[in-house]
Amino acid sequence: MQFTIQATDPESKARTGVLSTDHGLIETPIFMPVGTAGTVKAVHQRELVEDVRAEIILGNTYHLYLRPGLDVIGKAGGLHRFNGWKRPILTDSGGYQVYSLSNTRKIKEDGVTFKSHIDGSKHIFTPEGVMDIQRTIGADIIMAFDECTPYPCEYGYARASMDMTHRWLTRCIERFDSTPAKYGYEQTLFPIVQGSTYKDLRQQSAEFVAEQRREGNAIGGLAVGEPAEEMYKTIELVNAILPSDKPRYLMGVGTPENILEAIALGVDMFDCVMPTRNARHGIVFTTQGIINIKNERWKDDFSPIDEELGGYASTFYSKAYLRHLMRSEEILGAQIASLQNLTFYLWLVKQARKEIVAGNFAKWKGIMTKKLMQRL
Amino acid sequence: MQFTIQATDPESKARTGVLSTDHGLIETPIFMPVGTAGTVKAVHQRELVEDVRAEIILGNTYHLYLRPGLDVIGKAGGLHRFNGWKRPILTDSGGYQVYSLSNTRKIKEDGVTFKSHIDGSKHIFTPEGVMDIQRTIGADIIMAFDECTPYPCEYGYARASMDMTHRWLTRCIERFDSTPAKYGYEQTLFPIVQGSTYKDLRQQSAEFVAEQRREGNAIGGLAVGEPAEEMYKTIELVNAILPSDKPRYLMGVGTPENILEAIALGVDMFDCVMPTRNARHGIVFTTQGIINIKNERWKDDFSPIDEELGGYASTFYSKAYLRHLMRSEEILGAQIASLQNLTFYLWLVKQARKEIVAGNFAKWKGIMTKKLMQRL
Repeated sequence: MQFTIQATDPESKARTGVLSTDHGLIETPIFMPVGTAGTVKAVHQRELVEDVRAEIILGNTYHLYLRPGLDVIGKAGGLHRFNGWKRPILTDSGGYQVYSLSNTRKIKEDGVTFKSHIDGSKHIFTPEGVMDIQRTIGADIIMAFDECTPYPCEYGYARASMDMTHRWLTRCIERFDSTPAKYGYEQTLFPIVQGSTYKDLRQQSAEFVAEQRREGNAIGGLAVGEPAEEMYKTIELVNAILPSDKPRYLMGVGTPENILEAIALGVDMFDCVMPTRNARHGIVFTTQGIINIKNERWKDDFSPIDEELGGYASTFYSKAYLRHLMRSEEILGAQIASLQNLTFYLWLVKQARKEIVAGNFAKWKGIMTKKLMQRL
Repeated sequence: MQFTIQATDPESKARTGVLSTDHGLIETPIFMPVGTAGTVKAVHQRELVEDVRAEIILGNTYHLYLRPGLDVIGKAGGLHRFNGWKRPILTDSGGYQVYSLSNTRKIKEDGVTFKSHIDGSKHIFTPEGVMDIQRTIGADIIMAFDECTPYPCEYGYARASMDMTHRWLTRCIERFDSTPAKYGYEQTLFPIVQGSTYKDLRQQSAEFVAEQRREGNAIGGLAVGEPAEEMYKTIELVNAILPSDKPRYLMGVGTPENILEAIALGVDMFDCVMPTRNARHGIVFTTQGIINIKNERWKDDFSPIDEELGGYASTFYSKAYLRHLMRSEEILGAQIASLQNLTFYLWLVKQARKEIVAGNFAKWKGIMTKKLMQRL
């Protein structure tokens, strides 16, 4: 996997680049739609390609491992074959879901035992096991198994957890480097920086991660409830340590504003459920600001959802029609809003890319942040 | 609105025709996807055009009247403008939903009072009112307000109900003929034959309806639980009386087998929630038979859903992937299955059309009925 920096912003740490994988190129900065159970919710695969223009999507190891399970995905020849998505896939390590979704989980040095949220069955995720699982899913980018600490988090717990995450990382790397790619195309491993919001821990963790000299690095444990300023400070600190010639992936972030700020701090890759989850609740991101489509005010607004954005969902359907669908709990409402929000998120990072190349990023970011975050 | 018969089958009453409306041509026999609340559930409008190749869709007066309401639809300039569907629309009269969905309804000579299933608010549907409502919705084809009797139904009730439906029809026609088309394109009114499964009543009703000399006629009150043979006998009897140079619409029918049998009896138009509702429950219609996609047997069947049918949903996604989505209650599962089932239903009537033209309909029907109704 090769990463090439293309342009850098003189006024910030923002940069554009291209990450080449065996499933195609990813132009950064990039937003990766979340395809939890092998599907980006409410969006057809061809819509992801043709309308959203996604270049890489996420899969969730926890969900895919439980259902359909590794036997099915393995027999299919990997997730790409199973769901028909032909571009790159990144899988998370399953850690985050184990902590947030499973009924009872015990974190020990060896790994995490947990019960399935679907049928209560018992399972164990170890660093080694999670490498094997992601190899079998067939992710192009595999994430290290970590503990994502909550916010707030006591210093002692954060430090012990980070130390364990580092030991797990060593085990992940050993396993990953001693096993072959599963389906003939390259797979790569990204380690994850943890350390909660503590400066010294983040520094230590970033240094440990940087020393591994992997092909890309991730920042985890953010956007878990901490103030945005804390998040930005942490990103700045970490990015000063992570190698600048490798892609930096900020996990689980975030709002349009968060993304623009993090791009300015040198982040290249993002994922978040926000565009799709909010869509299903009628929160629509547009180039003019954020719309709660269920509000009375859109009742007879027959203008397109987002004329300026362009594309199918944005221009074919009206606000009033989408409002009607969402209030009626019609599936098409979720489909349209998801398509709109993802198209918007991809537009956002692509536009940022253009502005960085044009040397206009800082100025544009200032104007857009205000505009994009206002409630219409 | 013009209807031209094109070909007739020498061995049955099957025929092909073309119905021309101000929103375009409808080639019969035709299946009309049901778009209850102004949306064919889980299907984008462009998919209806490009993948399903629907030529006309249904809207439900009861649902649209309650939500979004006539003020919104009127301001939009009619349902076509509201939902972006540019081809013909047929609306039912709301009668069926009033009887099946609303909490309390009282049927009187003047009309039906009922409470909304959404908010309990009180409303009244009269023959005159329902004509006005459908004019405002902007249907190309407007259905008369009738009472759809349940099955079984006592003779006395069936006769009295039919008589009232006839009196209502007279009122519908008076109102319809004394009001202008709402949005500049032609609207037409189809009366409905009732009479439960009683021969003499069905004959009487068909004669009454035929005498009105409208541009098309419908058969209601079937597929409400009676044996299929009863239904076919009733259709045969009614179709012998309804004018053969006008389209005949069999309301709410049915399975692939029902449709082929009814085509053989001279029916031209069909609608049914079966393809979309069953889709959401994992029942998939294919050219090879009916699939319960949740069954274990499809777990690792990576073959396309319906290679022979062709088209996006049928060939892009595998049975195993669709099974996974349906078991995981993913929205995309409903999307794919709905697209598959509707594409299949439209293929079915278009194929019937071709076979009628080729003079091969009876033979083809015999083979297909067996094939299409088998459970795989």
